[in-house]
Amino acid sequence: MLAQADIVFHDALVNPELLELARQAERVEVGKRCGQFSAHQSEINRLLIAAAKVHDCVVRLKGGDPMMFGRAQEEMDALEASGIEFEVVPGVTAALAASADLKVSLTNRGVSRHVVFVTPRAAPGAPPNDWIAPVLRADTAAIYMGSSEAPHLAQTLISQGRAADTPVVLVTNASLPNRSARHLHLGMLAVLPSAELEGPVLILIGEVYRKGLTVTDKS
Amino acid sequence: MLAQADIVFHDALVNPELLELARQAERVEVGKRCGQFSAHQSEINRLLIAAAKVHDCVVRLKGGDPMMFGRAQEEMDALEASGIEFEVVPGVTAALAASADLKVSLTNRGVSRHVVFVTPRAAPGAPPNDWIAPVLRADTAAIYMGSSEAPHLAQTLISQGRAADTPVVLVTNASLPNRSARHLHLGMLAVLPSAELEGPVLILIGEVYRKGLTVTDKS
Repeated sequence: MLAQADIVFHDALVNPELLELARQAERVEVGKRCGQFSAHQSEINRLLIAAAKVHDCVVRLKGGDPMMFGRAQEEMDALEASGIEFEVVPGVTAALAASADLKVSLTNRGVSRHVVFVTPRAAPGAPPNDWIAPVLRADTAAIYMGSSEAPHLAQTLISQGRAADTPVVLVTNASLPNRSARHLHLGMLAVLPSAELEGPVLILIGEVYRKGLTVTDKS
Repeated sequence: MLAQADIVFHDALVNPELLELARQAERVEVGKRCGQFSAHQSEINRLLIAAAKVHDCVVRLKGGDPMMFGRAQEEMDALEASGIEFEVVPGVTAALAASADLKVSLTNRGVSRHVVFVTPRAAPGAPPNDWIAPVLRADTAAIYMGSSEAPHLAQTLISQGRAADTPVVLVTNASLPNRSARHLHLGMLAVLPSAELEGPVLILIGEVYRKGLTVTDKS
């Protein structure tokens, strides 16, 4: 599909190798990177619709999976309202890419039977969503776009009864050559300086990560 | 990787097109299909280790993503204990494949800010896991391998306060040519005959599916 595209609208954080597959296409970066320039969603919607009217094949390329914190619904709704046909190609969401890198399964019989994917992000003007409650009770939690709230989250989880030694992994750039993973625990996260939580960080929490934590502590 | 494999151990439900990519390889089906023959996990582990000792490239091919209810941890632990190197290739887990088919995002600003992935399955002898509680509070829930417990789940959710008209989608064979999706609501699921819940069904629950439910009701 990328090789057939006339134009590709892509996020800032997509794998550069994917863009290489669309060398014949016009390639337009439309955001979004936390804290830097980002096109408004309404502007992205408008661009997609305008492009669909003049091109045979328009690709909207997102990092991860579009249906998990990808704002795909807003774009799909806009396309449907304009009568534009589309299909959705699933991707590998960050928590699954990180799991493959870490070689730790999100679920594990006897340890984790459910996984919560959550973000603290809310629409402008919307009431803050209660994102800590599902994390508090989760066997395994994957928190997207939550790095700036991470110390507060850890403090709240501990104050509400989660053990301070509950394992945590901070993952950046899952699946990419510059990926990194840092094993710690909730007590450490609660006091982590904000400078160590910059950029797009996926936060993984749960007992399934205890093995990695032990290894890190010994080293 | 499939094209380079000497031998492929695969689940029953993998996409046949993927197996075609490994025509040069010996292909061994190792289960598991609910209620039919399934190799014991310990036997699968043993086969993987034995194959790794005589082959250069052994592939264990699972449907969906191995790190989400795929029992990958047990296989990885067995390989590590035998000193066998491996890597994990992420896949598209059923809920993401179904979302692409349905064109409904699991998350949606203002409607769903968290998603719970859960299964009622527990290891033999393990205490039943409390899988209904996370579903009760979930913005969006994806329930794997839960079809036989689905009416009980719906009854419990309603008795504990979820609206009977909460949208539900029953998905089979997501992403495959024979895929199907049935839109209903919790009240209908609570009284659904078990004959209509056979086979591997992914259950999706949440307000994000209301549009599809309305369409179905009108038709």
